[in-house]
Amino acid sequence: MTSAVADFARPRGVLAPVVTPFTADRAPDAARFVRHCRWLVDCGVGLAVFGTNSEANSMSVGEKIGLLDALAKARLPAHRMMPGTGCCAFTDSVELTRHAVELGCAGVLMLPPFYYKGVPDEGLFRNYAEVIERVGDQRLRIYLYHIPPVSQTPISLRLIERLVDAYPGAIAGIKDSSGDWNNTRAMLERFQPRGFDVFAGSETFLLATLRGGGAGCITATGNVNPGPIARLAASWGDSDADEQQAALDRVRAAFQNFPMIPALKRAIAHHSGDPGWVTVRPPLVELTDAQAGLLMQALEAAGHAMPGLSGGV
Amino acid sequence: MTSAVADFARPRGVLAPVVTPFTADRAPDAARFVRHCRWLVDCGVGLAVFGTNSEANSMSVGEKIGLLDALAKARLPAHRMMPGTGCCAFTDSVELTRHAVELGCAGVLMLPPFYYKGVPDEGLFRNYAEVIERVGDQRLRIYLYHIPPVSQTPISLRLIERLVDAYPGAIAGIKDSSGDWNNTRAMLERFQPRGFDVFAGSETFLLATLRGGGAGCITATGNVNPGPIARLAASWGDSDADEQQAALDRVRAAFQNFPMIPALKRAIAHHSGDPGWVTVRPPLVELTDAQAGLLMQALEAAGHAMPGLSGGV
Repeated sequence: MTSAVADFARPRGVLAPVVTPFTADRAPDAARFVRHCRWLVDCGVGLAVFGTNSEANSMSVGEKIGLLDALAKARLPAHRMMPGTGCCAFTDSVELTRHAVELGCAGVLMLPPFYYKGVPDEGLFRNYAEVIERVGDQRLRIYLYHIPPVSQTPISLRLIERLVDAYPGAIAGIKDSSGDWNNTRAMLERFQPRGFDVFAGSETFLLATLRGGGAGCITATGNVNPGPIARLAASWGDSDADEQQAALDRVRAAFQNFPMIPALKRAIAHHSGDPGWVTVRPPLVELTDAQAGLLMQALEAAGHAMPGLSGGV
Repeated sequence: MTSAVADFARPRGVLAPVVTPFTADRAPDAARFVRHCRWLVDCGVGLAVFGTNSEANSMSVGEKIGLLDALAKARLPAHRMMPGTGCCAFTDSVELTRHAVELGCAGVLMLPPFYYKGVPDEGLFRNYAEVIERVGDQRLRIYLYHIPPVSQTPISLRLIERLVDAYPGAIAGIKDSSGDWNNTRAMLERFQPRGFDVFAGSETFLLATLRGGGAGCITATGNVNPGPIARLAASWGDSDADEQQAALDRVRAAFQNFPMIPALKRAIAHHSGDPGWVTVRPPLVELTDAQAGLLMQALEAAGHAMPGLSGGV
């Protein structure tokens, strides 16, 4: 295998873990999904569909494949896609990953198996090795997904090293959602020089990540503030970069006072005029009207807008 | 719906979360699985297939349905079966639960969705409600699965109360794997009198649970020590009950010094003479030979045996 450095079209900049719209019956809503993805791409943001903020694990493998096929059919650009494909069962991860590779996706974002806790690195290594070897496709590019607050299954620096050594072509990078800048910095220093692309898990660390040589960020609020976040990723060397970062942080802070996924969906419902967007799957619960009122006030105060968002089918 | 108390054939006594054998290629091995299930039933233990110790979440829904069909085809008794059917996606839980009900299983053991952490009880209530209403079958009997050390998603007493009130026919009981006797006792006092059957999550609490009016236990070591555990469940009023409990505890303690699932599989491999039993799926890892040696020593010292276990196909 060639080194990951040799790739010519690796994802960079900003991607959103695209929120998944559901119908009133809580089925995945492909039409709304395609429309939102198109708006995000038009705003300069890539499509990390099936992330934590996508309620990915609240959908079956078949439902996710259906949504991916809907994006392909609508001719959304596969080279802007990095679907989440990491499941508890490696057989599920293989099925979903293979499908993503066959559609030409730029990469996949892969959770470790997250049911068992306190598992050895050897077991996590075997999980990724099984997927890589069973998919068996030179086009496969895996971005590891480190999100210990949710998965409770951290990806250690030692595990990354072992994976990069064993599979330098397939192991392409990481999303670090630890919220711990010391960890992100260690990854940037140790692995980014080897062509292992580090994405921060939130735009809060976007400027610091780019200044540290990283690739960008994959961030929940990319769903609702895509233009300004993408602008910072494109202009981070400019003199107003710190001001841009501060403006992004104000919008982020407004969302972080609420459960993130229901808050994102509520903001989209509000700005698109499409109330169906608020629906979540269990175990999540929609914001109350009182919470939604406070969220909208806070967003207005932070200067938040969603220009160009449309609610029409 | 009628009260759960009216059922005439509710599972009681001891069930094992049946360990799942895999082939060398890590595919579910239906032939070995059927053989082990038959031995367990012959030893007086019911089949809580697809539990935590079954590596259930390391298998796809399709793989689990395949194993369930193999049990049915082999005419294992469905009234002794309580398959685990709780997945992160309620659509998966519905598919698997419906299949179990159609096969006539006595009940299903249902994890809450376990990816998101810190979710509200309202969201967990909605998860169970979706499954109950979509399966829509009067034969459905759900045993809630409370295992916070692994799922990190506890089932509170308040949630149980709400579920029992809303679905007295479908919500049949719980497996309490909290390891916290105060919690088990609270469930026994509050809910067992309403016909909600409390199973301890380990035989360590078997005698205490039965004395408290509970239904029995669903225990990992039911896979490897079924006869003696079942005997205590059948004779817990006898004068030697405390001695029986102490003997069970000694065998349990020998296993608990090792990762449980690999240790169970190693013991079965040893006593059946079938080395293929040791295979696990990632993220788990087999015991080393050194660990296995220590385990076997400890089991011998505890007086452990597996009479009647056969390795032949």
